[in-house]
Amino acid sequence: MGMETRTKQPDSRTRLLNAALHTLRAKGYNATRVEDLCAVAGVTKGSFFHHFRSKDELALAAIAHWDELTGGLFAAAAYHALEDPRERLLAYLDLRSELLAGELPEYTCLAGMLTQETYLTKPELTDACERSISGHAASLVADIEAAMQRYGVEDGWTAESLALHTQAVLQGAFILAKARGEAALAAESIAHLRRYIMLLFRDRT
Amino acid sequence: MGMETRTKQPDSRTRLLNAALHTLRAKGYNATRVEDLCAVAGVTKGSFFHHFRSKDELALAAIAHWDELTGGLFAAAAYHALEDPRERLLAYLDLRSELLAGELPEYTCLAGMLTQETYLTKPELTDACERSISGHAASLVADIEAAMQRYGVEDGWTAESLALHTQAVLQGAFILAKARGEAALAAESIAHLRRYIMLLFRDRT
Repeated sequence: MGMETRTKQPDSRTRLLNAALHTLRAKGYNATRVEDLCAVAGVTKGSFFHHFRSKDELALAAIAHWDELTGGLFAAAAYHALEDPRERLLAYLDLRSELLAGELPEYTCLAGMLTQETYLTKPELTDACERSISGHAASLVADIEAAMQRYGVEDGWTAESLALHTQAVLQGAFILAKARGEAALAAESIAHLRRYIMLLFRDRT
Repeated sequence: MGMETRTKQPDSRTRLLNAALHTLRAKGYNATRVEDLCAVAGVTKGSFFHHFRSKDELALAAIAHWDELTGGLFAAAAYHALEDPRERLLAYLDLRSELLAGELPEYTCLAGMLTQETYLTKPELTDACERSISGHAASLVADIEAAMQRYGVEDGWTAESLALHTQAVLQGAFILAKARGEAALAAESIAHLRRYIMLLFRDRT
């Protein structure tokens, strides 16, 4: 363990997980080789297989790591203190727009990326991606329910379905941003979603 | 050429393109091997390389083939005859919902699938995907502009941005459907987009 502990950088397992977050989002599941991850993390192949039995086991751990990082980020966001649940939802979308910074592999979604390549061939990985996306969507449901109540919305749709729709918009916005190589397209789709939330939860006084 | 012409099935080039549409959407770009495509198409590797110099050249031809098939499908749709441009947009979305039938690789989008895996490594393929998605979005712009005029909407967004947003929703809806292995999730997102269109273009009389 000497090599990995002599500096203050993260331990080798965490470095491999961070390498996976970057490389899987940049190149996708199939194009990412264990050797690539070791090179990015600065660890040996022996160290890789000390921590993970396979690329699949690492990918599962990377999704859990992703959920922990993103879950922490959103849980700690200031907007939860806003009094009006509609404003909390709008501020969540504003935060999603602000996060569209830097290079594409840094702001796009690991779970969405892995789903595309694994949905027919790797059910265990796809299930983990589904739980990641659904779990994040679930964190919005209480605010949507509160907004539905406050603005008197009874329109035949559920809070769960709107929460999942927000994630569909984000996933699709990432694909358009990747296709054109620019974040502005994703921001415009988030702006349309913001407008939809405003139209759903209107002041009727 | 004898083997390929003795029955009335499509010629070997078309069979390879159809195999690419299916296999690339099922497994993704990197997991699809030339051998897989030959097996699905029922052609020899010699025949493959008679028609295409590489997997990339086939993928480019498959995107063109995809644009031709889907372009024809939407151009021929009955809804273009509707008088109200808002109703044409809603009927377009209804058609998109109706198309969510059969297995996932049969109704999801080739261009969205290829974008995810190629956006950093294969610019020529990504550009072709971008043109495919933007080109389809562009086919909605005239109806959106006509609806904006008819319903008196001047709200700081462009017809082009709403057209691209519809495609973002569809791409994201496909990812959610793949994650959960069911089309219903995609249909719910399309229903939210339909509701957004209704709210944008309201009768104000």
